Amino acid sequence: MTYSIAILGASGYTGAELIRLIAGHPDLTITALGANSKAGQSIAQVFPHLRHLQLPTLLQIDEIDFANIDLCFCALPHKTSQEVIARLPADLKIVDLSADFRLRDPEAYEQWYGNPHAAVAQQKEAVYGLTEFYRDKIAQARLVAGTGCNAATGQYMLRPLISAQVIDLDEIILDLKCAVSGAGRSLKENLLHAELSEGYHAYATGSTHRHLGEFDQEFSALAGRDVKIQFTPHLIPANRGILATGYLKGPSDAVHETLAAAYAAEPFVDVLPFGETPSTRHVRGSNFCHIGVVADRLPGRTLVVGALDNLTKGSSGQALQNANLMLNIEETTGLMMPPLFP
Amino acid sequence: MTYSIAILGASGYTGAELIRLIAGHPDLTITALGANSKAGQSIAQVFPHLRHLQLPTLLQIDEIDFANIDLCFCALPHKTSQEVIARLPADLKIVDLSADFRLRDPEAYEQWYGNPHAAVAQQKEAVYGLTEFYRDKIAQARLVAGTGCNAATGQYMLRPLISAQVIDLDEIILDLKCAVSGAGRSLKENLLHAELSEGYHAYATGSTHRHLGEFDQEFSALAGRDVKIQFTPHLIPANRGILATGYLKGPSDAVHETLAAAYAAEPFVDVLPFGETPSTRHVRGSNFCHIGVVADRLPGRTLVVGALDNLTKGSSGQALQNANLMLNIEETTGLMMPPLFP
Amino acid sequence: MTYSIAILGASGYTGAELIRLIAGHPDLTITALGANSKAGQSIAQVFPHLRHLQLPTLLQIDEIDFANIDLCFCALPHKTSQEVIARLPADLKIVDLSADFRLRDPEAYEQWYGNPHAAVAQQKEAVYGLTEFYRDKIAQARLVAGTGCNAATGQYMLRPLISAQVIDLDEIILDLKCAVSGAGRSLKENLLHAELSEGYHAYATGSTHRHLGEFDQEFSALAGRDVKIQFTPHLIPANRGILATGYLKGPSDAVHETLAAAYAAEPFVDVLPFGETPSTRHVRGSNFCHIGVVADRLPGRTLVVGALDNLTKGSSGQALQNANLMLNIEETTGLMMPPLFP
Amino acid sequence: MTYSIAILGASGYTGAELIRLIAGHPDLTITALGANSKAGQSIAQVFPHLRHLQLPTLLQIDEIDFANIDLCFCALPHKTSQEVIARLPADLKIVDLSADFRLRDPEAYEQWYGNPHAAVAQQKEAVYGLTEFYRDKIAQARLVAGTGCNAATGQYMLRPLISAQVIDLDEIILDLKCAVSGAGRSLKENLLHAELSEGYHAYATGSTHRHLGEFDQEFSALAGRDVKIQFTPHLIPANRGILATGYLKGPSDAVHETLAAAYAAEPFVDVLPFGETPSTRHVRGSNFCHIGVVADRLPGRTLVVGALDNLTKGSSGQALQNANLMLNIEETTGLMMPPLFP
Repeated sequence: MTYSIAILGASGYTGAELIRLIAGHPDLTITALGANSKAGQSIAQVFPHLRHLQLPTLLQIDEIDFANIDLCFCALPHKTSQEVIARLPADLKIVDLSADFRLRDPEAYEQWYGNPHAAVAQQKEAVYGLTEFYRDKIAQARLVAGTGCNAATGQYMLRPLISAQVIDLDEIILDLKCAVSGAGRSLKENLLHAELSEGYHAYATGSTHRHLGEFDQEFSALAGRDVKIQFTPHLIPANRGILATGYLKGPSDAVHETLAAAYAAEPFVDVLPFGETPSTRHVRGSNFCHIGVVADRLPGRTLVVGALDNLTKGSSGQALQNANLMLNIEETTGLMMPPLFP
Repeated sequence: MTYSIAILGASGYTGAELIRLIAGHPDLTITALGANSKAGQSIAQVFPHLRHLQLPTLLQIDEIDFANIDLCFCALPHKTSQEVIARLPADLKIVDLSADFRLRDPEAYEQWYGNPHAAVAQQKEAVYGLTEFYRDKIAQARLVAGTGCNAATGQYMLRPLISAQVIDLDEIILDLKCAVSGAGRSLKENLLHAELSEGYHAYATGSTHRHLGEFDQEFSALAGRDVKIQFTPHLIPANRGILATGYLKGPSDAVHETLAAAYAAEPFVDVLPFGETPSTRHVRGSNFCHIGVVADRLPGRTLVVGALDNLTKGSSGQALQNANLMLNIEETTGLMMPPLFP
Repeated sequence: MTYSIAILGASGYTGAELIRLIAGHPDLTITALGANSKAGQSIAQVFPHLRHLQLPTLLQIDEIDFANIDLCFCALPHKTSQEVIARLPADLKIVDLSADFRLRDPEAYEQWYGNPHAAVAQQKEAVYGLTEFYRDKIAQARLVAGTGCNAATGQYMLRPLISAQVIDLDEIILDLKCAVSGAGRSLKENLLHAELSEGYHAYATGSTHRHLGEFDQEFSALAGRDVKIQFTPHLIPANRGILATGYLKGPSDAVHETLAAAYAAEPFVDVLPFGETPSTRHVRGSNFCHIGVVADRLPGRTLVVGALDNLTKGSSGQALQNANLMLNIEETTGLMMPPLFP
Repeated sequence: MTYSIAILGASGYTGAELIRLIAGHPDLTITALGANSKAGQSIAQVFPHLRHLQLPTLLQIDEIDFANIDLCFCALPHKTSQEVIARLPADLKIVDLSADFRLRDPEAYEQWYGNPHAAVAQQKEAVYGLTEFYRDKIAQARLVAGTGCNAATGQYMLRPLISAQVIDLDEIILDLKCAVSGAGRSLKENLLHAELSEGYHAYATGSTHRHLGEFDQEFSALAGRDVKIQFTPHLIPANRGILATGYLKGPSDAVHETLAAAYAAEPFVDVLPFGETPSTRHVRGSNFCHIGVVADRLPGRTLVVGALDNLTKGSSGQALQNANLMLNIEETTGLMMPPLFP
């Protein structure tokens, strides 16, 4: 059986990554590509690296006939996504990659994003897309909200530890290093090669990054109390990858055991032997997440380091994993390609 | 039917690339990995990005039992390869990725590589592995010699033009820009990040690069006369990719038509519309080769630009394509993954 | 004696580079900085790397009082520059870094730049700023037109050879590799880190780059006949640097001797020993240009390779060298800093 | 007055950086360069970027006549340095850039470095080279031990806060991101461009990095009690730069005020306005250190971020600053060059 797929926002990086992944998926066929600003162009014009694929011409979203679409990926900018999704057929299966449906509480959404939500009904309906922890709900969902790429990394590292209460919930620090594709294809001076290459810096300092909304929502729900972590992202001169270093208070062996047990049966989350830590270069272009645990020289303190590819496991790979569940396809289909190294 | 595969030299970049590609191949299973310097280690120790794969422990080459191996890839260093292959079973199908069997003439070999050949019998037997031009011979071959990555790029750009005699054979200049993985995993100061990043330079200047032995052999055979091109490679601060710029004398429209016709039915070689030129970023991690043709402002002069990934189409991808032919598997199997961008 | 300096276009890369260089110059003081789009900001806001310098706040160009300015650098975009310079005081010494006054012939200007020149009087008056070849005229000039960075590189490699007629004037090919800061601080997708890093390509193919206007003008004047070269620039994933590879017909020894003799007394142009070629990493951040000569294996063919830093010797360093001459300061003042390596 | 300078270990990165800086210093002349492995070579062979300088040929260290040397920089590998310095004239002024004389306690040295110290007499005599805090002692010293580059960064951020007791001394976390030149010119696989570019990772995890010996020694001395911080360095795909993110408990305003006051008169340490944080790209190639302070959303928690160039302020620039003091030259001489950006 082949399912018919639409991708809205096909001219951005997560759109391109979806096309790359779906090209290797035996059960999905792309039948519509939406990209308002580049409508009328072929994929070869927008993304020459995809020129060998037989794909439809890019369309205005309004031009797309969703009647025969089995599932639609929305890889649109934040805020645009909610406006578009509010107008899509109410029975269309959707995996959204934007930030618009990640927060369940409209007030929390407005607090972090600065505007009232324009699709409150859909917001209520949306299932949070962190596959390994929402698998059953995702399989039943009509609308799945992809997590933030930073938020996914931190949750893989911390959720089992918070659930198991093996760490001090008031002393969680996450220092994250993100490659530049996480910022999308936006034209900003600090994303130019000449500015970014050979330089790196912290941003959204003081725990002001929007993905904290997700951490707060998810960690507090897990703990049954308010959990507020400290979180500092840094922009690194590389194209793909997130590396997060967690400074935790709790026994290292219990931390490692808890994580190893939590992911023992997971195909994509890999806990390294105790004392080893991961590198972004070993997950690039793949759907894998590597997690390492190290004991600090200070008793009772533990380092947890996580790595994944922000465009794959952090975004489009996660989206495809969720789509597989929603379409009742084996979850790992199309996602087992090894990383690209070097 | 599943074929049993051995890889010798599994701890180098082309070895790792073979493993990556074979991981997505439905008909091949890796049953032996040889790597003398790292024998006894697991693949996860040598290449953590491959840790999710179920693979045998690395062995000394002498420890490998070749009795049940259907095909062996040799990704060993030059000179080592000929010594090893001379001792392998005489009926074992082999795809060699080194330079050792590319030149058919022992004297030419000694001239370019500085030592007499240690496996002359095998040298005679070897078929040159540029798939698109030696397809039938490769399908029948026992031993196939993978081409140089630079040599592959230049031949894709020039062979049809030399065969069709649409360019001046005495006025061929190839200016090539190669990424650093082409130099392998060797420990040299000029391959360190601190030396290479942010800097680039020409090397093997004056047309002294060893891949000229292949150009001379192949182009002269095609033309039925001596053809000697000028060739300058440059080392570029990037990990994967070859971009070659050819300065030719001949009518641009005929050059484009000749190339377009030559590759019209080829799955991996793609001639761009007249006037467009390729980028390495659009072939990275893939088995595709993109070729563009542009007319110069000087009448009768034509620019041809080719791009491919040195580790894939230039080496391990080509090797797998040849192995498919030798094992009577559909040639494109395991090789259609799109490039990784960004 | 201290001279008072104004810089217009202080918020671009060449403006920043001028400030960097003048900071180490004992005889110059910056008294006015113009940058229309960022007027009102401090230099620390626009260029935090210059925050330790005592510099005036950025102004609208119209706000600047030129009465006490001894020399003005114009680092404005092409076309803007001619409009601004046409309105500046007629006796103000100016070094222009744009393309606007490089071509002496208004028709050639319009052909290459697509618009009629808006400051024809000043165009006539301007002296071409390739210091080593226009030194005397520059010392007397009121308005000096900085060369293109690619044009400077090619001219250092070729002018002495054309003058001495040691190469075939109809067979000059220049394959150039330029780092990304040469494109300025413009917001374009292909200048984003995620697009450029790990990828490279040719642009302005077919000898259509505007710097060819300069080559045509200068080389034809030298030869006393039309000289039209082939020229292909490539964009390389690095921030600073130009490396140009020239494919020439002429005896290698004569080529090397001619170049070595031409630059024997020059402080900034260094001809390497015969057979050695330069790297961009060895000139980065400096005002030096390195040139190497190699004999090709084909008799009578010669490779010349040149390297310089596009922002320094190719632009702002050249501009300061010219300003020194115009102000009767020792020419090398403020320009002898070594390259930054690694 | 011109002082005569020797550099031992001239073929490494810190040696090259010393030469670069001294080239712009009016009062110092290099009269001897030692580099055992490259003795007999010219500096142009070892570092082509320095070819324009008139410098002596590299010598075996034993060949150098120290009679007329006013000051000697030792940029030798750890352990080699102590052996060499033990044999140098006892009245020779020395600035050592290795780790060998940083720790005052022989037991601490052996604990962190694994071998007994081979020059205990000199170890006792050595003054710790963090200029801003040991200025008077350095001016009187014969032997100054340059700090670790990571250790310098962390101390600039933390010393005033520890002295002033405005932060919790038991809750100091330092997450550091170091560029690759900090690892020197050593031939290791993980320093190859193909391995490092596009990838990043933590190393010396669990607070096991040797620079912790310096932190322990200095911070405990300041506090008058044991202070042990948590410290994780990460290797970043860039050539120069250290960015350190400190997670502290203490009031943000007091932290900022304390740092601003501590460095108000310092020429090279610059505390940014409250709420701003630095980038490595804004200190590259310079002797400046930028420090920023931000309040976290969690009350009582403060982020401090520091940036400097590991080869300049973190090593060779610091060494020259100390040499200036030891020779009674104005401290900033030769060190005020702006950063190189882009």
